[in-house]
Amino acid sequence: MERIKPRTLSGFMELLPQKQAQFERMTEILRTTYGLYGFAPLDTPAIEDAQILLAKGGGETEKQIYRFQKGDNDLALRFDLTVPLAKYVALHANELAFPFRRFQISKVYRGERAQRGRFREFYQADIDIIGDTKLDILNEAEIPAIIYRAFTGFGLSRFQIRVNNRKILNGFYAMQSLSEQSGDVMRTVDKLDKIGAEKVRKILTEDLQISPEKADAVLSFIAIRGTNEQVLTALEGYRGQNELFDKGLDELNAVTRNLSAFGVPENNFAVDLTIARGLDYYTGTVYETTLLDHPEIGSVCSGGRYDDLAGYYTDRQLPGVGISIGLTRLFYVLDEQGLLNPELPCAPADVLVLPMTEDIAPAISLAESLRSQGIRVQLYGEQKKFKQKMSYADKLGVPFIILLGEDELAQSKCAVKNMVTGEQVLLTADEAAAHILSGKYTGPIILEN
Amino acid sequence: MERIKPRTLSGFMELLPQKQAQFERMTEILRTTYGLYGFAPLDTPAIEDAQILLAKGGGETEKQIYRFQKGDNDLALRFDLTVPLAKYVALHANELAFPFRRFQISKVYRGERAQRGRFREFYQADIDIIGDTKLDILNEAEIPAIIYRAFTGFGLSRFQIRVNNRKILNGFYAMQSLSEQSGDVMRTVDKLDKIGAEKVRKILTEDLQISPEKADAVLSFIAIRGTNEQVLTALEGYRGQNELFDKGLDELNAVTRNLSAFGVPENNFAVDLTIARGLDYYTGTVYETTLLDHPEIGSVCSGGRYDDLAGYYTDRQLPGVGISIGLTRLFYVLDEQGLLNPELPCAPADVLVLPMTEDIAPAISLAESLRSQGIRVQLYGEQKKFKQKMSYADKLGVPFIILLGEDELAQSKCAVKNMVTGEQVLLTADEAAAHILSGKYTGPIILEN
Repeated sequence: MERIKPRTLSGFMELLPQKQAQFERMTEILRTTYGLYGFAPLDTPAIEDAQILLAKGGGETEKQIYRFQKGDNDLALRFDLTVPLAKYVALHANELAFPFRRFQISKVYRGERAQRGRFREFYQADIDIIGDTKLDILNEAEIPAIIYRAFTGFGLSRFQIRVNNRKILNGFYAMQSLSEQSGDVMRTVDKLDKIGAEKVRKILTEDLQISPEKADAVLSFIAIRGTNEQVLTALEGYRGQNELFDKGLDELNAVTRNLSAFGVPENNFAVDLTIARGLDYYTGTVYETTLLDHPEIGSVCSGGRYDDLAGYYTDRQLPGVGISIGLTRLFYVLDEQGLLNPELPCAPADVLVLPMTEDIAPAISLAESLRSQGIRVQLYGEQKKFKQKMSYADKLGVPFIILLGEDELAQSKCAVKNMVTGEQVLLTADEAAAHILSGKYTGPIILEN
Repeated sequence: MERIKPRTLSGFMELLPQKQAQFERMTEILRTTYGLYGFAPLDTPAIEDAQILLAKGGGETEKQIYRFQKGDNDLALRFDLTVPLAKYVALHANELAFPFRRFQISKVYRGERAQRGRFREFYQADIDIIGDTKLDILNEAEIPAIIYRAFTGFGLSRFQIRVNNRKILNGFYAMQSLSEQSGDVMRTVDKLDKIGAEKVRKILTEDLQISPEKADAVLSFIAIRGTNEQVLTALEGYRGQNELFDKGLDELNAVTRNLSAFGVPENNFAVDLTIARGLDYYTGTVYETTLLDHPEIGSVCSGGRYDDLAGYYTDRQLPGVGISIGLTRLFYVLDEQGLLNPELPCAPADVLVLPMTEDIAPAISLAESLRSQGIRVQLYGEQKKFKQKMSYADKLGVPFIILLGEDELAQSKCAVKNMVTGEQVLLTADEAAAHILSGKYTGPIILEN
């Protein structure tokens, strides 16, 4: 037979079983966390009508999208989870209860230039809360608690949720009569950390033709730093000059006020006036999340408040707030950085049962009894030498094996061997179950250095 | 703004949140069950190189496949999970431990003619055990236990796992010197239930030109029915005439012998000589699973033993055994038949917390405390009339609500209302958690009539 060389397309993540087990754990933590906050799981098609996906149209998206014909249909693979959500909510608005909270952890597709750490197929893990006409600020205040619970669930502690409010930014630029240039100004200011204040000032005054006074005002506004308390106090100094600004400050206060009730430590939260997140879509609170020891990764969980989710599909006003985690990239980076806890067992089974007798019925019964107690059991039936069986157990990385020979059967017991410590004990089936369950390693997924 | 009418492509399942919750439960049961038998979760790309996906080539597959160009790449969406598994195992063979057990629950794509109950995007839930050169019969014997645990996990009891062995069929046809016509004969015999024995005999003797004696031999072989014991005994009558047949009978005995150790009741299992499952791929045990009260659905879980998983990609001999559940179709049919348990709460939250005071910090703290105990809590912050809040709770279908007003706060308690019984009790936070957890309805997903 002529053979075709097997390969996986570049830009597509395909993990070996042990890595996959770690990835699944991260997914599971997100599912659980999102569930604890009352988000319903949603699953939309990966393929949509291209006209619908591209309603917003233009730009990078159109170039990157996987688009194709099938019969008379102009189809495309989703490139994010927000557009399909907008379509879903517009389509089913009369059947949904608002606020509508959904999470979706699904693959999206972007035909970007292949590059190390860039993926063409990757998971996004999104939550959104959609209101009908209105949406209370409490929903925006709750988002940092969700991020905090998810990231601590991963085992991380050295991360920071950075929050700003677009109304504050837009209000401030309106005060300075810089609204029309606010896009250019924000993009310039974004480079502050890289090029320094002097160069920013130069670009503002020379390239953008902004007066030195206004450039200084912008620089001193952006320079507001300190504890959340200090930043909020400094912002109060601007109150009363612009209605939008004042509203934004009220919202920022509301988002910050209940942090301790939400269980989010001050350490993991910062009001940061440099966060802007794009120009048009977000209209209120915006979020970014950075790993303190890995600023080079950039934000690993971002989002914000928007006023109009589905304007391309419906005249119904659907404001919302949402965040997205680029899970594939996050996992890739954590793995690259060596942060995945190597102690965590990644075997597909908690125990490998090795029958050592002709009649394997007792081994089967034992395996089924352990399974009924929630233990993941692999029954090993291959005719191999004992040494090969042990080598297989090692390769899988199972934490326990059970040996069941004539001696053990005669005593109605089984020999349970801990593969880490080497300790071997003779136990009844129920004792073995308890022994295996209590011996489960339950450390964090991620180990910070 | 010009609006585009939102729609979901025909043949693509998109569920409302409550239905989605039920679907997720079925998926979860499969994940757990497959996990209990030591299968590792696997996730392969939805897009593969078209040359690789179509290595086997030809036929219906090629017509149905979603295939498209992106840059210079000839790409296609997977149409099943077996071909990607074959590629994966061939590609990573040196890094895997054999036997390699994996499960994958993923969407596959087939551009079939749209038709009620037919999907173009649908989930398959597959398990496979792949051996390196050899694979013990114990793996084949274990499959019915997995099917049994999964289907009883759904809440089903009226189902039957039907098992046959291709070696018995091929061996029998060899005995009758009908090997070359065995495909045609099996296809004819397959119509037995529909057209009756007389017509089958007519086709065999007239269309296929088989002698009346052989036709009768085929009919009487296929007519072997009864308990597993009776069928196996009848098959012993053919022993000694063909080596392949004898090997198949040994295998069928091995698969049947330990059923009770595996915990599979006789009722849910039948040796059935009419099961054949395609012609070339399967080489040993074959499985089908039918719902006894819904034979019109056909098999809902099928598979078998094969000798050569990845011959198109590697010269390594990789025998295996696997089964597949067409989960989207199964769910669709169960829903259509009204079998999804309507009592099962499908709300995204276990409790909706309604703050009734100006300061919402206590409600937030309560919500976080309940979440830390594993309770799914939605905090409701919208400024609405009480009646509207209750109507929202009803629409979501939450089993409990918590009211937190000044009176409750003064006593450090909260009012927990059971939305099914209407009963309302005043409890501390910890009591509320215990009350909600103990009040969780935990019936089966599927209710048989």
